[in-house]
Amino acid sequence: MPVTDPAARARFLAAVRFNEHGLLPVIAQAAPAEGGQGGEVLMMAWMNAEALEETLATGRVVYFSRSRKALWRKGESSGQVQHWTDLRLDCDGDTLLALVEQKGVACHTGRRSCFFQALRDDEMTAITAPDVDPKVLYAG
Amino acid sequence: MPVTDPAARARFLAAVRFNEHGLLPVIAQAAPAEGGQGGEVLMMAWMNAEALEETLATGRVVYFSRSRKALWRKGESSGQVQHWTDLRLDCDGDTLLALVEQKGVACHTGRRSCFFQALRDDEMTAITAPDVDPKVLYAG
Repeated sequence: MPVTDPAARARFLAAVRFNEHGLLPVIAQAAPAEGGQGGEVLMMAWMNAEALEETLATGRVVYFSRSRKALWRKGESSGQVQHWTDLRLDCDGDTLLALVEQKGVACHTGRRSCFFQALRDDEMTAITAPDVDPKVLYAG
Repeated sequence: MPVTDPAARARFLAAVRFNEHGLLPVIAQAAPAEGGQGGEVLMMAWMNAEALEETLATGRVVYFSRSRKALWRKGESSGQVQHWTDLRLDCDGDTLLALVEQKGVACHTGRRSCFFQALRDDEMTAITAPDVDPKVLYAG
């Protein structure tokens, strides 16, 4: 649900405290089912002011890629886009929680969530299997 | 559930890519109910290697306070401690998801979750009310 009023978008941006690199950590969580407390945490990435402005204006989640130093319209190469249903800033304005409708999978490994490494029987283990072959996600 | 084997803790730490300041962003999410997909995202904070080691060894969540430049045993002044039920590292090892049993509230404002600022009718709004008066949390 895009925020069509530029003044409202400016109010949101004014409440954000970007870090010393002009970036904001963003947690993407699957939007909860009706009445639910919350869905799966899918990934964490970063936005700069431009990415947040475009995210607010379009309803589609846009990050800033620190490695590419460019806007990263999530799903632009994989098709696995995110549309947000709510954007919630934390108490001190330096972290954003995006509730999203995730098309397909969030992780470049083909898993629904990026958070899949954990100790099991004292060994680091992949606790979920890919839903999709990454070769399919990023094929031409 | 503490990790009692120091070698297992070392394997976990070896999988982490701390940032240029030696820190790791940590998302605390309420542990899901039996069979559930996930609970509420409560807060985001940071750990250094020492905080993560103590978190693994004790079962209690310990952060690193960037403002105090010291370990922050969550709840040490407020009583609102966190015990983890799982610690999940993301695909590239640079973000941690802690599933936690939160005693009381996570936020210093007395709210369950720190993520309570959002646009409603185009105005930045506190979408939840405090459960506890912060003066009570930090009294004494």
